[in-house]
Amino acid sequence: MVEHARNSRLSRRSVLVTPAAVAGGAVLSGSASAPEKAGVVRQITLYAEPLPGDLYGYGLAPGEATIPGPLLEIYEGDTLEIELVNNTDKRLSIHAHGVDYDVNSDGSPLNDSFNEPGETRTYTWRSRKQVDIGGNRFLPGTAGYWHYHDHALGNDHGTIGIQKGLYGGLIVRRRGDLIPDRQFTVVFNEMLINNKKAPNTPMFEARQGERVEFVCIGHGNLPHTFHLHAHRWADTRTGMLTGANDPSPVIDNKNLDPGSSFGFQVLAGEGVGPGAWMYHCHVQMHSDQGMVGLFLVRNPDGSMPPGAQAAIDRFRQHHHVAAPQADHSNHHG
Amino acid sequence: MVEHARNSRLSRRSVLVTPAAVAGGAVLSGSASAPEKAGVVRQITLYAEPLPGDLYGYGLAPGEATIPGPLLEIYEGDTLEIELVNNTDKRLSIHAHGVDYDVNSDGSPLNDSFNEPGETRTYTWRSRKQVDIGGNRFLPGTAGYWHYHDHALGNDHGTIGIQKGLYGGLIVRRRGDLIPDRQFTVVFNEMLINNKKAPNTPMFEARQGERVEFVCIGHGNLPHTFHLHAHRWADTRTGMLTGANDPSPVIDNKNLDPGSSFGFQVLAGEGVGPGAWMYHCHVQMHSDQGMVGLFLVRNPDGSMPPGAQAAIDRFRQHHHVAAPQADHSNHHG
Amino acid sequence: MVEHARNSRLSRRSVLVTPAAVAGGAVLSGSASAPEKAGVVRQITLYAEPLPGDLYGYGLAPGEATIPGPLLEIYEGDTLEIELVNNTDKRLSIHAHGVDYDVNSDGSPLNDSFNEPGETRTYTWRSRKQVDIGGNRFLPGTAGYWHYHDHALGNDHGTIGIQKGLYGGLIVRRRGDLIPDRQFTVVFNEMLINNKKAPNTPMFEARQGERVEFVCIGHGNLPHTFHLHAHRWADTRTGMLTGANDPSPVIDNKNLDPGSSFGFQVLAGEGVGPGAWMYHCHVQMHSDQGMVGLFLVRNPDGSMPPGAQAAIDRFRQHHHVAAPQADHSNHHG
Ligand SMILES: [Cu+2]
Ligand SMILES: [Cu+2]
Ligand SMILES: [Cu+2]
Repeated sequence: MVEHARNSRLSRRSVLVTPAAVAGGAVLSGSASAPEKAGVVRQITLYAEPLPGDLYGYGLAPGEATIPGPLLEIYEGDTLEIELVNNTDKRLSIHAHGVDYDVNSDGSPLNDSFNEPGETRTYTWRSRKQVDIGGNRFLPGTAGYWHYHDHALGNDHGTIGIQKGLYGGLIVRRRGDLIPDRQFTVVFNEMLINNKKAPNTPMFEARQGERVEFVCIGHGNLPHTFHLHAHRWADTRTGMLTGANDPSPVIDNKNLDPGSSFGFQVLAGEGVGPGAWMYHCHVQMHSDQGMVGLFLVRNPDGSMPPGAQAAIDRFRQHHHVAAPQADHSNHHG
Repeated sequence: MVEHARNSRLSRRSVLVTPAAVAGGAVLSGSASAPEKAGVVRQITLYAEPLPGDLYGYGLAPGEATIPGPLLEIYEGDTLEIELVNNTDKRLSIHAHGVDYDVNSDGSPLNDSFNEPGETRTYTWRSRKQVDIGGNRFLPGTAGYWHYHDHALGNDHGTIGIQKGLYGGLIVRRRGDLIPDRQFTVVFNEMLINNKKAPNTPMFEARQGERVEFVCIGHGNLPHTFHLHAHRWADTRTGMLTGANDPSPVIDNKNLDPGSSFGFQVLAGEGVGPGAWMYHCHVQMHSDQGMVGLFLVRNPDGSMPPGAQAAIDRFRQHHHVAAPQADHSNHHG
Repeated sequence: MVEHARNSRLSRRSVLVTPAAVAGGAVLSGSASAPEKAGVVRQITLYAEPLPGDLYGYGLAPGEATIPGPLLEIYEGDTLEIELVNNTDKRLSIHAHGVDYDVNSDGSPLNDSFNEPGETRTYTWRSRKQVDIGGNRFLPGTAGYWHYHDHALGNDHGTIGIQKGLYGGLIVRRRGDLIPDRQFTVVFNEMLINNKKAPNTPMFEARQGERVEFVCIGHGNLPHTFHLHAHRWADTRTGMLTGANDPSPVIDNKNLDPGSSFGFQVLAGEGVGPGAWMYHCHVQMHSDQGMVGLFLVRNPDGSMPPGAQAAIDRFRQHHHVAAPQADHSNHHG
């Protein structure tokens, strides 16, 4: 009944590459008064691999590549050293948004920063805190909902690598930020979500009241808008407001255009109850052609709420009914 | 000379579904120290009807459907119960952005939430205030410039219903927010504004110095940018800044992509004087093909300022002169 | 080796039309406590001229037109009187975003505000500070990263004038804002940057640690996203944060759609070191077809950092390798 086991597993927790920090109660409790800690250096190995269907993915171990790749997460101040193993026969790389890197870790052929087929290469990403320079001015820190992607497969801009699945989410968290119970990465890539089309798009699952974090990333050539039913967020760094007078708009629909990313946390089903809630691109033709998925909010005890299974069945059986003018020649493939 | 009588009438005040609150002097005066009041429950009936030209609309009484539908407005904390009467021979629904609703009021076929032809069904929308959860964190409230639209006509995403006019604006106001003198809803829907093309797009009218509220909504398949001449606003929840150090950008051009909405208030003609000011999509081909209209700022006494009538005449007579490369085969239809 | 001499010269400083203010130490030092000064009136003359390749440009003297036109800059409160000399055989105008102007300075044919061929006409732009109206509400001032463009060549919306180069940046600075060492205007106009395609797009140059200001403007018919490698900024009025609790997102990729503009300051190479850093549209097909350029961060002494010349050579020689599916029929023209 509930598929996407691999996605579910991955979505429980990102690759929190600072486990020591997470183990600290202060951070886990999300206290804003967590003591400052010096940044740490974390090392991981990523494996770029071919996947069925002429696709590619990044994974944390050989044979475990996924689309999107693992959700990487560090704390502001940390450094992440990524040993990228290229287990494909193509030139490829990893390029990060948001973090600091020198030209050797740019991931661009421009800077001769890529892996030849079979090659292993280390990319180093650093992060830093905001800096008060006086006069009510702070140089921005690195905290944010970012992403990484290939920048070398097929051409100098990674166009083919991205198209075929070489991308993933990257969170740089500020110490004291709230830690979610569940994390979901949603990538709008051409007419697909995480390179899938409905009804095969991911079904994200949580229990009523759990703190859920969405990391949304845009790729490809088309403009999109991400919409989530029955939940909303502030258009800020965290998705929350910082005070009663915070001027930020609250939204439930946001542009997710190529290269952009944002994230937010919601309490699943808060104020609206459990159920099968749609998330989709609000460009009508895109949702009609399959850019839609389900956010299943279960009862607090994990059981299915009334009507949810019927909605899931409906989604799987009838989603394909789209606008008459739409071309669905390859929709049932 | 001044057409669009129906639009003018509608634009004076939205369907302020909490008249009791509005009658209170504190809210009308816009005082930030207005005493908190418990939310109220308001009931309205909306009628979905066919309109000439193979269009559809929502209205507050039989035979009064408009495109866009009535501008709905509540205060944060209020509940709105909408009895939707489907006076058409199509399946349709009403789906809201921004507010709380359970699966039965989702308005989506996924959740079996729609009106069969001839059916009446009640949709309940709730709203709530922001919640201080400590650590400089507030869960966002519902206040914002939102919208509603069909989610069931033609397919499971309301693609045809939206295309044919089933949409409108929804404001959730925070107590103490300033109340405008005039309100205008602007919907960029495919290549049309409120399903009209210039010179038949709405001419919004106000007197110099009046507080005017624009509610802007995007629909369809295309990206757009809303631009208003000679006026600007802050990219915040209200369009105003909250202090001398508010970091928000001030803008006069903003993406208005499918499913997105925003709003703002300006003082008509402030600093620039009365006149016929253009509002338009800044995508050149879109404005060339008719996504342009007029914001007529009259003199304080309501008379026409010098040159305004000439500008209106020019707009009506000559607007059709567009870029040579544009296709205007159906432009004079 | 380093080309684009004209661009380099222009980019050093914008046409700061309030030189007296700049000469004042308070402003140059960026002190937030700079004494308030009354706005001044500045007069400049702009010349619209034909340029080779069926293009047009604005310039500060006859024969000096450039694409983009000169970067204009005033302080909030100042007035700018522009005498526009039309040295072309086409009807054209200048229309500003963000500032105040009456109908005669609208720059639109709608308001009979344009220059006939050979005609000289004065356009007046005013600016003003934000106004505290109580209740934590401020009417926005004019400070921002704006732009100007033709609104009359070819049709009533300036579609042809914009397409052919009649556009430029406009900064309205708040007193106390930090003054940059270098300024660069980046205009995404259809599939071109500043009406150029790679490898002929501008190479922006700075020394490690210099304060660099980017002014980004979108034009034409297509949605774009501006991405800068190895640097990021806050999505605020200035690109900086205003405090430790400022909720604004920090980004390195932002929509740059027609009619929109934004700006930010970065310290060149801060935290990442010198080198040849890419800036590009992140719509893959757009970067593949030439919407990409270089931000060359030199060593502090102005010398070339290791690898930078090789990267520049690579960019010039190999940029043209694009996605297989892309059409490059006119790419080597
Ligand atoms: Cu989409
Ligand atoms: Cu448009
Ligand atoms: Cu682009």
